[in-house]
Amino acid sequence: MADAQDTYDQLCSHTRETALLASVASVLEWEEQTYMPPAAGEYRAEQLSLLAAMTHERATAPQVGEWLAALADSPLAIEADSETAAVIREMRRSYNRKTKLPSELMAAITRASSLGQQAWVEARKEDSFAKFAPHLDEIMRLKREEAEAVGYVHCRYDALLDEYEPHARSAEVGPVLAALAKQLMPLVEKIAASPHQPDSKLLAGPFPVDRQVPFGEKVAQAVGFDFTGGRVDATAHPFCATLGPRDIRLTTRYHESEFSGWLFSVLHEAGHGLYEQGLPSDKYGLPTGEAVSLGIHESQSRMWENQVGRSRAFWEYFYSPLQEVFPEVLQDTPLEDFHFAVNEVKPSLIRVEADEATYNLHILIRFELEQQLIDDDLAIDDLPGAWNAKYEKYLGITPPTDAMGVMQDVHWSAGLIGYFPTYALGNLYAAQLYEQAVRDLGDPDDQFRRGDFATLLDWLQANIYQYGHRYSASTLVERVTGRPLSSDALMDHLENRFGELYRL
Amino acid sequence: MADAQDTYDQLCSHTRETALLASVASVLEWEEQTYMPPAAGEYRAEQLSLLAAMTHERATAPQVGEWLAALADSPLAIEADSETAAVIREMRRSYNRKTKLPSELMAAITRASSLGQQAWVEARKEDSFAKFAPHLDEIMRLKREEAEAVGYVHCRYDALLDEYEPHARSAEVGPVLAALAKQLMPLVEKIAASPHQPDSKLLAGPFPVDRQVPFGEKVAQAVGFDFTGGRVDATAHPFCATLGPRDIRLTTRYHESEFSGWLFSVLHEAGHGLYEQGLPSDKYGLPTGEAVSLGIHESQSRMWENQVGRSRAFWEYFYSPLQEVFPEVLQDTPLEDFHFAVNEVKPSLIRVEADEATYNLHILIRFELEQQLIDDDLAIDDLPGAWNAKYEKYLGITPPTDAMGVMQDVHWSAGLIGYFPTYALGNLYAAQLYEQAVRDLGDPDDQFRRGDFATLLDWLQANIYQYGHRYSASTLVERVTGRPLSSDALMDHLENRFGELYRL
Repeated sequence: MADAQDTYDQLCSHTRETALLASVASVLEWEEQTYMPPAAGEYRAEQLSLLAAMTHERATAPQVGEWLAALADSPLAIEADSETAAVIREMRRSYNRKTKLPSELMAAITRASSLGQQAWVEARKEDSFAKFAPHLDEIMRLKREEAEAVGYVHCRYDALLDEYEPHARSAEVGPVLAALAKQLMPLVEKIAASPHQPDSKLLAGPFPVDRQVPFGEKVAQAVGFDFTGGRVDATAHPFCATLGPRDIRLTTRYHESEFSGWLFSVLHEAGHGLYEQGLPSDKYGLPTGEAVSLGIHESQSRMWENQVGRSRAFWEYFYSPLQEVFPEVLQDTPLEDFHFAVNEVKPSLIRVEADEATYNLHILIRFELEQQLIDDDLAIDDLPGAWNAKYEKYLGITPPTDAMGVMQDVHWSAGLIGYFPTYALGNLYAAQLYEQAVRDLGDPDDQFRRGDFATLLDWLQANIYQYGHRYSASTLVERVTGRPLSSDALMDHLENRFGELYRL
Repeated sequence: MADAQDTYDQLCSHTRETALLASVASVLEWEEQTYMPPAAGEYRAEQLSLLAAMTHERATAPQVGEWLAALADSPLAIEADSETAAVIREMRRSYNRKTKLPSELMAAITRASSLGQQAWVEARKEDSFAKFAPHLDEIMRLKREEAEAVGYVHCRYDALLDEYEPHARSAEVGPVLAALAKQLMPLVEKIAASPHQPDSKLLAGPFPVDRQVPFGEKVAQAVGFDFTGGRVDATAHPFCATLGPRDIRLTTRYHESEFSGWLFSVLHEAGHGLYEQGLPSDKYGLPTGEAVSLGIHESQSRMWENQVGRSRAFWEYFYSPLQEVFPEVLQDTPLEDFHFAVNEVKPSLIRVEADEATYNLHILIRFELEQQLIDDDLAIDDLPGAWNAKYEKYLGITPPTDAMGVMQDVHWSAGLIGYFPTYALGNLYAAQLYEQAVRDLGDPDDQFRRGDFATLLDWLQANIYQYGHRYSASTLVERVTGRPLSSDALMDHLENRFGELYRL
């Protein structure tokens, strides 16, 4: 036992130093997106590539494998859900994945993704899927190879999904998403048919950027984001980055004519940031100091953006201050109209602009197509047709061009396969966890109306944040809510919210 | 020969990768000063300490010593002033210095400096030199030990000076500084006695910060600073940092009531930045891609700040645009008055606020005291008295407190001994190089008046920047100006400038 503890401590110490080195790259990546002058990009890539190689070498050192092997049957690994067992489980998962991938394959994927992204930019500009197709074909071939190298039980796609959503399996995720879609489609139809529709022009501004900045920060602070260990900057695409245990960076984008793209981005990224700030900082670099999965991470961003930020009670607290900051645009707009406008539902071609209701349909389409691509049923040449057919089926609209359809975003050209489902899982987790929070805490509207966001945050801290990655996402959800993940909570939430707003 | 070339190439490749790793730390340090939230400081220190250890290990690897030994008598090292000989010379100097210092001594200095700085902050607050004295005593003892470990020919102080001003020796620097002081003191007296004095209240503002920012950037760009590979940010203390071959960061500070502290800082740091941007980027990480010394670096910042930026012709070009930006304060102020005000000479207690004439007297005082401290003549307890006596002797003023005197800045508590002389050397080099530029290029005033700063910059590029550290500072100055460094050019410059302004 003394020996096992000693081995465990060495493993943890090594892993934390690897995380320390990896965090250096995070600083450089954040800075590249925020402040770096353009000509510096070439050398920055060299800096990051050196750090990536050093980090990879440390993470895949044979010594790590020996420590893990020595711990495999030790008492520290046996008691399921103990902290040490969780640490060993997640370190083994990560080590296995990294060491199973041949470096030539990783290099080939990096190269194909880099060329793929360049080709995608051109092909999209010219609306020529034919130009992009050979690159995408090659990327999918390599990702299938990656899945084979990593290994899987049921289907190849699971090996890719596992990178972003550890321990999740298509056989479990698929039925939940399908059930969700089945209920969502009629809801979206009813919403479209409602005679009561919001006036979204209210949100077109102008909202002067120099007033957006402090108001957004005020909102982030009010929901609990700690600026002594974080900040908000401007980038082309909003994100949340962790540069160290007490160094969480949010970004948003500011455009005079964009309300939702600014403020709901702030809330979304603040949700990610609250989770990162709530993880135990003394365990930084270990699985118990890390987020569970992209899906659970997304559940936090979506909960603060949607369940909280698009609630009526939230705006009962924040609308007056907002009107004071932008009187030219908002002083004559009643709260009701404003609140309806930020909850507009309207089928669109692009996920990133989708509302809370249709969003998950975009994800389902991607999930189904990715599975077909990785499991070989679908040929690349048939992809645009399949894409359009699914958009017609699920959203009732057909993209007029492939540029606006199958080539709409960067994920596939960048080799990100298995990533999309985490967006929908985030919404499902958010709804089910939030439903439980409401049961435990009483009426959240009463709290939000008073500007009390700490009650909810404390609940999240106690039920989710403090555990890091001690449990898998499905175990965590079941522990907290007492039942496995289903689409019920999300559908209840959407039907309540939109039923009321659209008077269904 | 083929073998030597091969060894040389391996050495260069290794050294460049070390520089790549070191540049990562520069990004983190810059970010710490500019944007990092306060709670992140602790982990940032861990990140930097890991990088420092890794960089030190690479830089002092025994393999480097073997390569250098193998090259010592090779044809590549023999031909003095050849590029390869210069590279080998400087790499050997750096390697020797680093490997001669025992790691326990380095750790002790780091510890003593850290404690020393904390003690200095407290002692200064309480104006109690007695509280600081034991720390300073320990730092000086360790720095003497460092000098002994590094080795020297004439005096211990040279071993410390060499770190900042490679190949400079007290026996050469001392007489030049002494000669300068001897001529400066009567000039400063004459200036003080002149009935014509500027009105420095003109520069008290208010200059709204949001207008300072773009104007400062415009000036930096006009003198040639390339913003595609650089930027300007705000920090407590202005600096210039190189984060990569095409990534040069300037900082300044903005206060509504500070003109000189803002704009001349921009020009000063832009001078450093122009040098860094002018170094051959394809040799980044090698001595031939690096600055010669802190003194030569300072010559570039001081030349753009003083020779250029405080010239009448410079303001003939920039004063109208400045008046347009700050009409409330400047529209009724004639150019003559403004130009006189930015050239005010007034003995002060603190170097960082000193004017162009008295500045070097501050440095001479430090240089003399540091030499005495390191060569053991001066006991720490006698330091405040010695400090005050020298301020009385050279500047005619006595600090009312030790906090404003001997404890006025952080350098000594931080273990920076041998650094100060580079400030004065910078002024001396600047004047002598600038005098030669004027000889070669004709009347610079004609150029500045038209906004032509490229003519001077091209001359600096051709005569200084392109060579990196191929020559030592004294060799470079003699090559460019045809004579060894003396105080003549600087005295001529100061006597001309202030003779005219103060009508001496």
